[in-house]
Amino acid sequence: MIIDCHGHYTTAPKALEDWRNRQIAGLKDPAAAPQASELAISDDDLRASIEVNQLARMKERGSDLTIFSPRASFMAHHIGDFRASATWAAICNELCYRVSRLFPEHFIGAAMLPQSPGVDPRTCIPELERCVRDYGFVAINLNPDPSGGHWKEPPLSDRHWYPIYEKMVEHDIPAMIHVSTSCNACFHTTGAHYLNADTTAFMQCLTADLFKDFPTLRFVIPHGGGAVPYHWGRFRGLAQELKKPLLKDHLLHNIYFDTCVYHQPGIDLLTKVIPVDNVLFASEMIGAVRGIDPDTGFHYDDTRRYIEAAALSADDRYKIYEGNARRVYPRLNATLKARGQ
Amino acid sequence: MIIDCHGHYTTAPKALEDWRNRQIAGLKDPAAAPQASELAISDDDLRASIEVNQLARMKERGSDLTIFSPRASFMAHHIGDFRASATWAAICNELCYRVSRLFPEHFIGAAMLPQSPGVDPRTCIPELERCVRDYGFVAINLNPDPSGGHWKEPPLSDRHWYPIYEKMVEHDIPAMIHVSTSCNACFHTTGAHYLNADTTAFMQCLTADLFKDFPTLRFVIPHGGGAVPYHWGRFRGLAQELKKPLLKDHLLHNIYFDTCVYHQPGIDLLTKVIPVDNVLFASEMIGAVRGIDPDTGFHYDDTRRYIEAAALSADDRYKIYEGNARRVYPRLNATLKARGQ
Repeated sequence: MIIDCHGHYTTAPKALEDWRNRQIAGLKDPAAAPQASELAISDDDLRASIEVNQLARMKERGSDLTIFSPRASFMAHHIGDFRASATWAAICNELCYRVSRLFPEHFIGAAMLPQSPGVDPRTCIPELERCVRDYGFVAINLNPDPSGGHWKEPPLSDRHWYPIYEKMVEHDIPAMIHVSTSCNACFHTTGAHYLNADTTAFMQCLTADLFKDFPTLRFVIPHGGGAVPYHWGRFRGLAQELKKPLLKDHLLHNIYFDTCVYHQPGIDLLTKVIPVDNVLFASEMIGAVRGIDPDTGFHYDDTRRYIEAAALSADDRYKIYEGNARRVYPRLNATLKARGQ
Repeated sequence: MIIDCHGHYTTAPKALEDWRNRQIAGLKDPAAAPQASELAISDDDLRASIEVNQLARMKERGSDLTIFSPRASFMAHHIGDFRASATWAAICNELCYRVSRLFPEHFIGAAMLPQSPGVDPRTCIPELERCVRDYGFVAINLNPDPSGGHWKEPPLSDRHWYPIYEKMVEHDIPAMIHVSTSCNACFHTTGAHYLNADTTAFMQCLTADLFKDFPTLRFVIPHGGGAVPYHWGRFRGLAQELKKPLLKDHLLHNIYFDTCVYHQPGIDLLTKVIPVDNVLFASEMIGAVRGIDPDTGFHYDDTRRYIEAAALSADDRYKIYEGNARRVYPRLNATLKARGQ
């Protein structure tokens, strides 16, 4: 089985975006604000948005199951207040849940949280628990910068975030550390802000002892870990200067990297430098980079091709495709086992 | 000849830091503010700070000439106002100049600019010109985020920066795009802010057409280009989505990456992915990562070993060590030629 741990609902019906635009307009003009119930998307709409997109590509490329969460760039936690984020997160998560019900073999949910800049993350817990208990979601996406490129919250190692971590541990779910749209003109969303956030999150963990407080907490750092594997020597050396343990002991029981790196040399480096137990297959397909690479004739985000071509044993490839995901996402594993998979 | 294009005066005599601390204290209590003339560092002090440090390592590792600029993390442009930065930059640049006079075969200067958040970069021109004309400096360091991790200036493609670029073109000097200390708790200075800035700067150039306005402008992006070479497929794909030319045409006549990547797999990726004409030897030695790698028994920042071990032809290695630097830093080349080198 091939599990893609990083998929977003980037192809949701246009009605979703229209509703969001009305919600945003309603922040200034409450009379324009829509009710959640005004959003009408039928099961047929959902099927149509998935069948010719993610599902078609999954079949074409040979992946079986995607851990599916709301579109990352649309989370936009910097817009409005907690109430706006709460309504928006509930709507987006419900759509992912419905997709997972329509295609239970192929999609399982990961929750967007109703984060809002400066608001206690504790406020996200009801939505988190609803997604786990009612929707069978197996993970969350945690945004370390709900301000959208202004980086005003404390680092991930701060007690500020502990209420979320306590719930993650209680429900045995990992978090993908994933920012949303940048509203800072310095940072292009998918070309700078996403990668910077990945690097930043890793370094926030490196300088702290978060995983002493939460030995079973698990973070998935997407986009191949930002700059981290490429600069693995730098990070090993910084840990050494800071008198931290070796990275494999200090962080690699808790931090995992996905394979959203869109060319062969990048995947070769990732799989060479990072222990195979810490690498999870992912594509973020129909995401930031949708085109076809003229050098290969295949989609940039068809990451399975790179994994196939990398110097890996069959056992290593199994871990990256399936084994590690079953370990990092125990609720996913339990769901699969209940189905006899 | 081996030219290291990225060295900072990280080993300056303690008197420099003491003076700076008094200057900072003087921002709140003007009576405590020191005069520039109160800083007394003798030539013997300078020699002692260099001979057993950078120069000893250069001889040990076999590099000949370092492009030498004030300590990056001490620039701290976010502290005080333009006047404070102007005095501080003048002092730091003068020390680098004196080092270059004491060891002319081994050091040549690159200028720190007296940037200050929210202040027109035009104010940096007198110091820039002084360094080029009076000190024979061959480059500048340009900080895209003088706020120190809050990213409040416009992107590098904005006309805000054009007065600096006009002077760079006039004097035929490149800029290394280098931030300073982060005062944002989210970003570790050398483990996150530096690498993020490198990625950010590249993407700011990718989304714009800056080099149409300045076809001869040259940027050196340090630390191996941040996350860029590792994600080269992503950046090629983003350029494609944005209908920009191929990166080699769009950016690689103007952007260069240094080799401050502190392990073999990173250098292997850099030299495989980025055209050899765009890679400049550098170590940033006695910098962010000063330790010895237990995996190799050599200093992490002894980057020459990685270049020697990389799959490169003698001609490629010549370009990385010397040829490219002579082309990217024409004033360096002219200085060497005047000496018969």
